[in-house]
Amino acid sequence: MSESPNQVKIIGASLPNMPWEEKPEGYRGPVWRHSANPVIARNPVKGIARIFNSAVAPYEGKFVGVFRAETVNGRPHLHLGWSDDALHWQIEEERIPFVDESGKSYMPLYAYDPRLVKVEDTYYIIWCTDFYGASLGLAKTKDFKTFVRMENPFLPFNRNGVLFPKKIHGNFAMLSRPSDSGHTPFGDIFLSESPDLLYWGKHRHVMSKGGHGWWQALKIGGGPAPIETTIGWLMFYHGVTQTCNGYVYSMGSVILDKDEPSKVKYRCQNYVLTPEEWYEERGFVDNVIFPCATLHDADTGRIAIYYGAADTYVGLAYTTVEEIVAYTIEHHETLGDDAELGRL
Amino acid sequence: MSESPNQVKIIGASLPNMPWEEKPEGYRGPVWRHSANPVIARNPVKGIARIFNSAVAPYEGKFVGVFRAETVNGRPHLHLGWSDDALHWQIEEERIPFVDESGKSYMPLYAYDPRLVKVEDTYYIIWCTDFYGASLGLAKTKDFKTFVRMENPFLPFNRNGVLFPKKIHGNFAMLSRPSDSGHTPFGDIFLSESPDLLYWGKHRHVMSKGGHGWWQALKIGGGPAPIETTIGWLMFYHGVTQTCNGYVYSMGSVILDKDEPSKVKYRCQNYVLTPEEWYEERGFVDNVIFPCATLHDADTGRIAIYYGAADTYVGLAYTTVEEIVAYTIEHHETLGDDAELGRL
Repeated sequence: MSESPNQVKIIGASLPNMPWEEKPEGYRGPVWRHSANPVIARNPVKGIARIFNSAVAPYEGKFVGVFRAETVNGRPHLHLGWSDDALHWQIEEERIPFVDESGKSYMPLYAYDPRLVKVEDTYYIIWCTDFYGASLGLAKTKDFKTFVRMENPFLPFNRNGVLFPKKIHGNFAMLSRPSDSGHTPFGDIFLSESPDLLYWGKHRHVMSKGGHGWWQALKIGGGPAPIETTIGWLMFYHGVTQTCNGYVYSMGSVILDKDEPSKVKYRCQNYVLTPEEWYEERGFVDNVIFPCATLHDADTGRIAIYYGAADTYVGLAYTTVEEIVAYTIEHHETLGDDAELGRL
Repeated sequence: MSESPNQVKIIGASLPNMPWEEKPEGYRGPVWRHSANPVIARNPVKGIARIFNSAVAPYEGKFVGVFRAETVNGRPHLHLGWSDDALHWQIEEERIPFVDESGKSYMPLYAYDPRLVKVEDTYYIIWCTDFYGASLGLAKTKDFKTFVRMENPFLPFNRNGVLFPKKIHGNFAMLSRPSDSGHTPFGDIFLSESPDLLYWGKHRHVMSKGGHGWWQALKIGGGPAPIETTIGWLMFYHGVTQTCNGYVYSMGSVILDKDEPSKVKYRCQNYVLTPEEWYEERGFVDNVIFPCATLHDADTGRIAIYYGAADTYVGLAYTTVEEIVAYTIEHHETLGDDAELGRL
């Protein structure tokens, strides 16, 4: 069993063309920012005021993204984007044209905070949709031309749906964060299973807000799809605290059990990235770091994390699997029954 | 098609030994109270302060009940009870001994507002349980001796889970009311399907709170298992309004489409029973009528409705399928997209 963080490896594909920068000299944190952040600035496309909280994936030697695009009328929708280097993005002006199983147009009233996860030969988009209140929407594509909406996986109210990138015990596995339909001043992360992405069950509690990390005192929610490693599932997530002037969103890291991912193995009580730069501190919603996707290379252990900044920009940050796992283990604390199976 | 309320029939079994009283002369409402209400009074059993919001069913020529028993330490638990006439109840002093699939004791921390529904040859109990917040618990029994807890059907937060008494399109069907973990100042009724009671999906919105009926302005929630009739599924439910001195719970009635029960056919804008008697107006929570079960006889069309009164007593009320259906159609109004399929 490879439990030493010095030997931990990403289990997965090579991605030599992913963005990468070495850690700046003298920088102390376990996650460091891209030098040319933000990678997507304000007013990036006609009719779109801000792009943030968005997801990217490798596709046919290039990169594809599903972007939360806040239109100039103030509604969020999902737009596709393409890039050769995962740094410079061509965002499409039209919304992703969702259809139902019969091919008929089936557009959400609004859509935000997408995740984009490949499982086997299909890419899945999970987003926050209107289902008589905030809940999760789900769609699939193989070619990024036809996007078929599937059944909403859960009853309202929910947000931050994150699929695992492979089946576990033969089932699809999805993290989510039950919520209210407003600003949700509470929230833990749960795990649900599905044999077919149509019916969901075996719901388990994964992680609680709180603990010594005051940055995650109010609520937590899943981030990018968990990364399979030799030590377990490495997951970045957001943790939120409440100040007199509003919420502050930071990024945390946790390692979930490989076979029973509702069990926490190591949970970092420190944030791994918190708003410090101008594009994180200032914007439509100040003080937000909201990770939604990673690119990673199994050969080198390099990880690039895409995060929404201040509900206004897309930021990019880097770490390595060795460094983030070592930091997470070094600052580990178990909260509540995080380490349990989470079935009451 | 038998759409005339004068010809409407209950589809189901005969139950000649169910409780029954004719409508009192001069009484105007569509639902009338049992003359010896409440049928279960305060301090009915050692250690139990109040029984209310409880469910009953015919069983082997007698009647069985699953009762919400508020213990003298202030925690709700589920107790079994037996009766020859469905009026005089012997409540067991011990809690229902839930076990898991392996036979190991698997008791909820608390349990309240049970429903008891027979589907095919099995009785199911659905209750509000602790799943890191209020959510639905589910258990099954065939003999009322062994009670096996199954997977919790939904993520938190939820209450008022009500199974349909038969499968629809080959699937189990469950109503529920997504909520928060507190007093939930909102709430609509949803429908979900399951092929196996393990995985749930195809969630649909059934009914919205609101409309001309101010008695259901704040929230609504399912009640007894819907009754199959020739005109559709007859469902009693609770509607809640908010006054300066608290919530008031009344009983409503609705007829759902037989084949697509997420569609409302007729919805009564008037309450069909509202707190008026001392045992409904006064108690631990004043002004509550909370229906959880019916007994009904297909031969005569008689319906007996068991309801919690003021979170303190069990009350009983009567109607006939002809009378309640006629009243519901006469005072019908469609709210929002009640009559639609409820998929956004």
